[in-house]
Amino acid sequence: MATIMAWLADLHVDTALELAGVFFAALSGGLAGVRKSFDVFGVLVLAWVTGLGGGVVRDLLIGATPPVGIANWRFVTTALAAGVVIFFLHPSVERMRRTVIVLDAWGLGFFVLLGTMKGLAVDAGLLASVMVGVLTGIGGGILRDILVGEVPLVLADRQLYAIPAFVGAAVTAALWSSGLLVLWTQVLVVLLVSGIRLLSLRRGWVVPAPGSGWSGRWGVRGRMGR
Amino acid sequence: MATIMAWLADLHVDTALELAGVFFAALSGGLAGVRKSFDVFGVLVLAWVTGLGGGVVRDLLIGATPPVGIANWRFVTTALAAGVVIFFLHPSVERMRRTVIVLDAWGLGFFVLLGTMKGLAVDAGLLASVMVGVLTGIGGGILRDILVGEVPLVLADRQLYAIPAFVGAAVTAALWSSGLLVLWTQVLVVLLVSGIRLLSLRRGWVVPAPGSGWSGRWGVRGRMGR
Amino acid sequence: MATIMAWLADLHVDTALELAGVFFAALSGGLAGVRKSFDVFGVLVLAWVTGLGGGVVRDLLIGATPPVGIANWRFVTTALAAGVVIFFLHPSVERMRRTVIVLDAWGLGFFVLLGTMKGLAVDAGLLASVMVGVLTGIGGGILRDILVGEVPLVLADRQLYAIPAFVGAAVTAALWSSGLLVLWTQVLVVLLVSGIRLLSLRRGWVVPAPGSGWSGRWGVRGRMGR
Repeated sequence: MATIMAWLADLHVDTALELAGVFFAALSGGLAGVRKSFDVFGVLVLAWVTGLGGGVVRDLLIGATPPVGIANWRFVTTALAAGVVIFFLHPSVERMRRTVIVLDAWGLGFFVLLGTMKGLAVDAGLLASVMVGVLTGIGGGILRDILVGEVPLVLADRQLYAIPAFVGAAVTAALWSSGLLVLWTQVLVVLLVSGIRLLSLRRGWVVPAPGSGWSGRWGVRGRMGR
Repeated sequence: MATIMAWLADLHVDTALELAGVFFAALSGGLAGVRKSFDVFGVLVLAWVTGLGGGVVRDLLIGATPPVGIANWRFVTTALAAGVVIFFLHPSVERMRRTVIVLDAWGLGFFVLLGTMKGLAVDAGLLASVMVGVLTGIGGGILRDILVGEVPLVLADRQLYAIPAFVGAAVTAALWSSGLLVLWTQVLVVLLVSGIRLLSLRRGWVVPAPGSGWSGRWGVRGRMGR
Repeated sequence: MATIMAWLADLHVDTALELAGVFFAALSGGLAGVRKSFDVFGVLVLAWVTGLGGGVVRDLLIGATPPVGIANWRFVTTALAAGVVIFFLHPSVERMRRTVIVLDAWGLGFFVLLGTMKGLAVDAGLLASVMVGVLTGIGGGILRDILVGEVPLVLADRQLYAIPAFVGAAVTAALWSSGLLVLWTQVLVVLLVSGIRLLSLRRGWVVPAPGSGWSGRWGVRGRMGR
C-alpha cells in the first residue's frame, strides 16, 4: 500500500493526464446540458457532475471524504472550465465530435486505472476496488443522463463502454495482487481499455440485448456515437 | 451492541436467507431492465442496484464503508447471478410473477430487519436505525425506477409496501431498546412485514392519495402488482 | 474551529429558524408529490427529501455520519409535519404561493450559511465547504425533481437560485478565513442570499442560456415561479 501511495504522490505527469481526462468527460456533460437548453449554471453543474461525479461516488464508497471532486481546486476548476468552453464554443465542439470520442476513450482508461488503484490504496479489498474502478469510469455519465432526464446510455446502448472499464479494473486488481502493477503495466491497462473501446466503435461490436442472440448483431454495424 | 454483533456473526442460516432476499429483489431489477430493452450490461447493473442498492445507501448513511454491496463476494455474485438468470430466462420468470411477488414480500421483511439491526449495531441511534431499515427495504426499488426513467413505484402506487417496512423497522427498534430482540422476535418481525404486505395485496388495501379520502378507496380493489 | 463549534452549540434561535427553513422547503417537496398524484407515503418522502436531502448529501460528503437528516428527531419530524400539512391542506398552500416563495428564499440563505459553516467546522477546507454549502441549498430541490421524474428546475429555468447560493457560500468562507464570521455578518449573509433571490424575481433577472446572449434576455420578464 505504501508503494501505491508513493506512486500516487509522484504522479505529476499522470495528474496532468487525469485533469485532461476530467476535462474531456466534462465537455460531454456540458454538451448534454446545452442540448437540453439548460442555463449557464446548469451547463456548469453538468460539466462538473460528468467530469468528477464518478470519482465522488468512488470516494463516498471507500470513505475518502471529502471527495477530491469537491475539495481539489485543480479538479473542480478543470471541470468548470470545460463547462465554460462548452457554453461559448459548443458548435465547434460538436463539429469535433470524433476527436472528443477518442479523447473520452482514453480518459475512460485513465479513470478506471486510477479509480481502482485508489480503492486498493485505502485497503477497500479487491472486489470493492474493481467495483469503484468501474464506477469511476462510468458513474459520471450515468449521473449526467439522470440529470438531463434520460435513461443512462451506458446501460442501454449496447456499445462496449462498461465492458472495457470492467476489464481494465479487473486487470489492474490482478496485477496489483500479483505485485506486477508498475508504471509500464499501468500504461498497458490504459491502452487496453481505450483500445477495446475504440476498436469496438470502429468494428461496430455491440453487446447483446435480451432476445437478440449473441451472433446476429455481433459485428454488424458501427455507431460512432455516445 | 456486542450481542447484536455476535448475532450478526452467527447468522449463517440468516445469511443464506438474506442472499435469497437479494436474489429475488435483483430478479425484479433485471426484469425492469429487460422490459426497457437494456443491453446485457444494463440488465446486470439493474439487478445489482435493485438487490444491493438499498444496503449500499444504508452503509453510506451509517458510515460503514466500503458497503457490503460492493465488497462482499457472496452478495455481489448473488445479485449478478439473478441478472444472468433474468437475461436468459425472463419469459419464464414473467410467468412466475405471483411467486416472485411473494418471495419479494418475504425479502422485504428480511431486509428491513437486518437493515435496522445494522444501524443499531453501529450505534447510529434509534431514529437513524429505523430510517436506514426502511431505506434498506425500499431503496433498491427506488434506484431501479430512477435508472429506467420512471417515477418510483413505491411513492406513487398506493400499495402497502413502505408502510410494512416502516412498521417492521419501528418494531425492531422498539424490541431492541426493550432488550427483547432475540431470534424468535426477529422471526416475528419478518412475518409481520411480509404478512402485512401480502394481506394488503390479497385484500386490496391501499393508502390514500391526495383528495381521495381515506374511506372511499380503502379495501376496494386488489392489484397483484408492483 | 472551536469557535464555530461553540456557535453551533449555542444556535438555539438559529435552530428554530433552521427548522422553519426545513419546513418551508419540505412544503415545496410535498406539493410536488401532490401534483404528481403520489400517495400519502410518497408525499411524506418528497417532503423529507426536499427539506433534508441537501443536508444529507452535505453530511455524506464531509463524512458526518449518520446525517442529521436521518438522525435528528426535530429535523425529521419537522419535514414530515410539512408533508402532513400539504397532504391535507394543499389547496390552501397553493393559494399562498407567493408567501411560500418568499419564505423559501429566506430558507435558502439559512441553508447555505449553515451548510458552509458545517463544512468549515469539520475542516473540510474552503473549497469543499463552499461546494457543500451550495449543495445544502439546492440539493433537496434537485433530488425532489429527480424523484418526480422531471429535469431539475434549478439547472434549467434560468432563475437566480444557485447564483445567490454560491455567492452566499463564497462570502461565508471568505468571512471565515478572514476571522470576520460573527453573528451580525452571518445575518448579512442570509439577507444577501435571500435579497438577491427575491430582487431577481421582482426584476425578472435571469441567467443566460446557450445561444441567448447575455444582454437580450437580461431583465426582460419576471416569473414569480419555481
